[in-house]
Amino acid sequence: MIIIMNRLAPESEVTAVVDKIRAAGLSEHVSRGAERTIIGAVGDERSLSPEMFESMPGVERAMRVVREYRIVSRETHPQDSVVQVRGLAFGGPAWQVIAGPSAVESGAQVAAAARAAREAGCRLLHGGVFKQHPSPYGFQGLGVEGIEQLIAAGRAEGLPVVSELADVRMLDVFLEQGVDVIQIGSRSMQNVELLKEVGRLNKPVILKRGIAATLGDWLMAAEYIAAGGNHNIVFCERGIRSFEPAYRATLDVSAIPLLKRETHLPVIVDPSHAAGKAWLVPALAKAALAAGADGLLLDMHPQPETALCEADQALTPLGLAALMAELRPLAAALGRSL
Amino acid sequence: MIIIMNRLAPESEVTAVVDKIRAAGLSEHVSRGAERTIIGAVGDERSLSPEMFESMPGVERAMRVVREYRIVSRETHPQDSVVQVRGLAFGGPAWQVIAGPSAVESGAQVAAAARAAREAGCRLLHGGVFKQHPSPYGFQGLGVEGIEQLIAAGRAEGLPVVSELADVRMLDVFLEQGVDVIQIGSRSMQNVELLKEVGRLNKPVILKRGIAATLGDWLMAAEYIAAGGNHNIVFCERGIRSFEPAYRATLDVSAIPLLKRETHLPVIVDPSHAAGKAWLVPALAKAALAAGADGLLLDMHPQPETALCEADQALTPLGLAALMAELRPLAAALGRSL
Amino acid sequence: MIIIMNRLAPESEVTAVVDKIRAAGLSEHVSRGAERTIIGAVGDERSLSPEMFESMPGVERAMRVVREYRIVSRETHPQDSVVQVRGLAFGGPAWQVIAGPSAVESGAQVAAAARAAREAGCRLLHGGVFKQHPSPYGFQGLGVEGIEQLIAAGRAEGLPVVSELADVRMLDVFLEQGVDVIQIGSRSMQNVELLKEVGRLNKPVILKRGIAATLGDWLMAAEYIAAGGNHNIVFCERGIRSFEPAYRATLDVSAIPLLKRETHLPVIVDPSHAAGKAWLVPALAKAALAAGADGLLLDMHPQPETALCEADQALTPLGLAALMAELRPLAAALGRSL
Amino acid sequence: MIIIMNRLAPESEVTAVVDKIRAAGLSEHVSRGAERTIIGAVGDERSLSPEMFESMPGVERAMRVVREYRIVSRETHPQDSVVQVRGLAFGGPAWQVIAGPSAVESGAQVAAAARAAREAGCRLLHGGVFKQHPSPYGFQGLGVEGIEQLIAAGRAEGLPVVSELADVRMLDVFLEQGVDVIQIGSRSMQNVELLKEVGRLNKPVILKRGIAATLGDWLMAAEYIAAGGNHNIVFCERGIRSFEPAYRATLDVSAIPLLKRETHLPVIVDPSHAAGKAWLVPALAKAALAAGADGLLLDMHPQPETALCEADQALTPLGLAALMAELRPLAAALGRSL
Repeated sequence: MIIIMNRLAPESEVTAVVDKIRAAGLSEHVSRGAERTIIGAVGDERSLSPEMFESMPGVERAMRVVREYRIVSRETHPQDSVVQVRGLAFGGPAWQVIAGPSAVESGAQVAAAARAAREAGCRLLHGGVFKQHPSPYGFQGLGVEGIEQLIAAGRAEGLPVVSELADVRMLDVFLEQGVDVIQIGSRSMQNVELLKEVGRLNKPVILKRGIAATLGDWLMAAEYIAAGGNHNIVFCERGIRSFEPAYRATLDVSAIPLLKRETHLPVIVDPSHAAGKAWLVPALAKAALAAGADGLLLDMHPQPETALCEADQALTPLGLAALMAELRPLAAALGRSL
Repeated sequence: MIIIMNRLAPESEVTAVVDKIRAAGLSEHVSRGAERTIIGAVGDERSLSPEMFESMPGVERAMRVVREYRIVSRETHPQDSVVQVRGLAFGGPAWQVIAGPSAVESGAQVAAAARAAREAGCRLLHGGVFKQHPSPYGFQGLGVEGIEQLIAAGRAEGLPVVSELADVRMLDVFLEQGVDVIQIGSRSMQNVELLKEVGRLNKPVILKRGIAATLGDWLMAAEYIAAGGNHNIVFCERGIRSFEPAYRATLDVSAIPLLKRETHLPVIVDPSHAAGKAWLVPALAKAALAAGADGLLLDMHPQPETALCEADQALTPLGLAALMAELRPLAAALGRSL
Repeated sequence: MIIIMNRLAPESEVTAVVDKIRAAGLSEHVSRGAERTIIGAVGDERSLSPEMFESMPGVERAMRVVREYRIVSRETHPQDSVVQVRGLAFGGPAWQVIAGPSAVESGAQVAAAARAAREAGCRLLHGGVFKQHPSPYGFQGLGVEGIEQLIAAGRAEGLPVVSELADVRMLDVFLEQGVDVIQIGSRSMQNVELLKEVGRLNKPVILKRGIAATLGDWLMAAEYIAAGGNHNIVFCERGIRSFEPAYRATLDVSAIPLLKRETHLPVIVDPSHAAGKAWLVPALAKAALAAGADGLLLDMHPQPETALCEADQALTPLGLAALMAELRPLAAALGRSL
Repeated sequence: MIIIMNRLAPESEVTAVVDKIRAAGLSEHVSRGAERTIIGAVGDERSLSPEMFESMPGVERAMRVVREYRIVSRETHPQDSVVQVRGLAFGGPAWQVIAGPSAVESGAQVAAAARAAREAGCRLLHGGVFKQHPSPYGFQGLGVEGIEQLIAAGRAEGLPVVSELADVRMLDVFLEQGVDVIQIGSRSMQNVELLKEVGRLNKPVILKRGIAATLGDWLMAAEYIAAGGNHNIVFCERGIRSFEPAYRATLDVSAIPLLKRETHLPVIVDPSHAAGKAWLVPALAKAALAAGADGLLLDMHPQPETALCEADQALTPLGLAALMAELRPLAAALGRSL
């Protein structure tokens, strides 16, 4: 921790800061410049917080020197981690593409989606069953029945299954039914109780970025999961909120190389929710992979124009197959495989 | 719903849109201009969504004409609603000021806070017991023990008690212990399951704004609560995320008059979390009330420099008393009371 | 300057940083912690920049300790500065309210506006003559003829005159015609050549905040003016761009107390451009003053519904008079005068 | 223009809107629904603005149906436009990469930069001579002398030359010296007088996006140039301001496909200013091209660690060559050439 004192802070205020550092079991290092006195706290700074000092008289600013996240940090684990899902590796040389409907609507619909996903070359099936619809009058998902249909569709096509968990009380159902990957949605990224619960599992978790989460916030959310013992975490960028009204969210491609530098864990991208429009998805998917992402999560619907929600962002089976065909030469050019 | 067709959309695409409107039980109104054909859907547009049309060929844009929220809308309830908390009215002529510690740390701490709050003229006590700390290594709150201490402190000083609920599984404890007002925090504003649960109660709810929630998102979150039958909702603005690094969140004072126009429900403001610094709180508190807020939610700690979290934003008892003294003439000047 | 080295930076990289500090004429102070080596540069850090170090191998981060702005900083001038405009003081106990049309449209229009402004109790007249319209097909202002009409209207009512300068080539006209206060608009806040030019004058300048300018950016823009010798600067907050679509810009009331702490110069607020709607202006005006602003800049038009631009944000003469009547008791309650 | 009336708007208010539409020479189309009356204005809506109606009693909202930009719109020019710079085509199948120093510092420095750019395969040289430094105490550029050095370096290597113009008074110098492409920087994107001046030329213009400009704002800025007669416009995305502090600006890759849909003009990307760090540039460059950009503008310096400004974002000659080598297979995979 570095504490910068106000220009006119008297000696007594410097002493108070030093006392507080010592009380926390660290030692101090005081540097008196012409304009400011700067105090460094030497030792394990995780028992300190900037706020502890910024509320003290004479302190202008305090800031951490070491990152707050530890388990997910590349500092403590320099090699890339690979997260395994039933034999599929996230974070290795191969890109993993997950596809499926935003909401499971029926057994037939999700079966058709699974078939189209597999035929296009995707290796995992996604389907939403507990929808966090922005409106109480909107489609809330099929619930448990939807999970059964999703699992059946995935098993029939040999695709592991990904679904979003938003309510801790549904965790048992997810486990009993055999959902392969638990997705934490962007609205739940800071739902601490949910993070703690999935942290206790030995099951892969896709952690989507909150729409206004900084990379630091997001890494700390992952640290919550990791601190519980579950290190099978895949980050999923899905766009952040900006002032631009032309699309649903601003896909933050810069987050990809930054995360790859800060953490050893895999990073995938959901271009569908960022775009909000199916026609935009291919350009964003390619940009994400070119920036270094390890895979994609794509909204796809057998008949988007009949979809019960997010109809405008789902790729058709044809659109998905066309995109996958475009990705193959891209993978080769970028030294990856698909 | 208004649907704007592309300039070159052929007649068949117009017909498809019209068919979809009719299939949903509404009727259409087609206006052919020089540059665009515009189609209005006449009837109850809540069975429609813009996405249903924006995924159709030839459609450039679709937009709602009527707001999606209904129960919380001033259109359906033109008079101001007053939310009662044990005899205290939110939304009437009097400002209500809630104060207390960000986290209950001990019986003695919260008792001292309650006393200071009452002495300063505040009428409700706030205290956090399940903290959603951004770090898994930070203070997570005292839990059930903290509720007991909070309730005891409130009862001793005759102050109704407000606390944040973030985990649906804790709802029964809140009810058994007699928490008077349930606060939904900004990270939970779109936790739909939680909104549904508090929507089933007959108990006042303070609904904080998500850090990146538009006013529309926020009103829809309130509609979730209201749709369950609970209309005792108080909105609480607490700052939004912007590019400015100089403070923790940008207090959105414009939200206050806009909400007062859109909804009949009361609106209060939490300047402490927006500021992130105690010295900024008085200016923001006065700004919020001058803009038309019905009350305040203030972080206060008997000894901020020892606080286990958010030390730098808590007012001291002296600071709280000084602010309340400043608010009295302001209330008179603005035609309110305190 | 503080330079934080990477955890694994070898001694040679530390030495290179130290050499660079010495080469710039400063001395170093090296603190070796368990996790990081931290280097402080002692001396006049204005010859350094963080980028100089962040491009060096082994450097994780570098940050300034002292603010880059100097003349406008309260550190170098602890007392409030008062900016005089023909006998009117900005930054003293009295609030100054400037009103007038977004665009001068005719001699009669601006004369009517001036009369209404004076009758309502405003003490300065504003009028736009070179409009920076977002569209090339929109009204571009009356130009020189407009200045003459504006000056005539101001002189007739005894009101000093404020107008926006966006093109350096028009500066002479502003000076010859006797514009009393030069306004730098939000789109020009970082037009460095313009800032340098008005920095050479001995004439008050109102410096509006850029729509995405941090407080640091804004203070540096003022420093440009001040560095040229002109210290007669009044800051004008007018809203920043956020994700919220419900109003034109997010009025940043927190900027007011923050600026008052960072700089000795006066701060006023333009609620009209933030609101974008006349009905919102009174609430925002009161919020700004309650937060500590020294005055207001208000859009007003004798007949808003006929205005050639920004028709929806202009107050009517009646609306202006009603707002001024509301502000008088507020001034008394806040210890100011009007 | 579509005008939506308030639910309770009386007939007289509807009539007033209709009268205003007719007065502007358009005709109306009134649709009375259960909940709202909607009025369409049929005819050339460019003589109308939403504000004209939103200031009228009874009007809830008014919105354009047709885009305000016309010359730059793909509606009026469906084929891609190609902008020629001394035989190089922007907007055709080949990517164009511009490289050079953020600031020209000496004849030797820019000559070395030009050589490295050519050797790496770049086809245009960039150099800044009038710097818009955020600080008045920072390096302001070499001015006219710098242009001469830049031109000399470009001519020596056979590279057309790009430089930023921020001050209208310097336009003649740019023309006399033979700058091949005039760049309008992001701080000047809404400097209307500058846009008008370059609109009168017959010379290619690179128009950077303002840091908080919506796509609509940006297209209107281009329309200003085009309305003057100069259609040789190349858009350059360079990152927008968001809440994320981890990099300098958020590169908005979604802007690329959206612009390509809205306008027929070429779009390039400056990843250097978005990243603010050289190590981030390759990932962003590849993302931009994969999203459909027509070229890049790259900061490069022969010796970044000695650079007078923006030292941390410049590629070295080696870094530039390595990136260009990575781009060649990418171009092939994406059906482009380099």
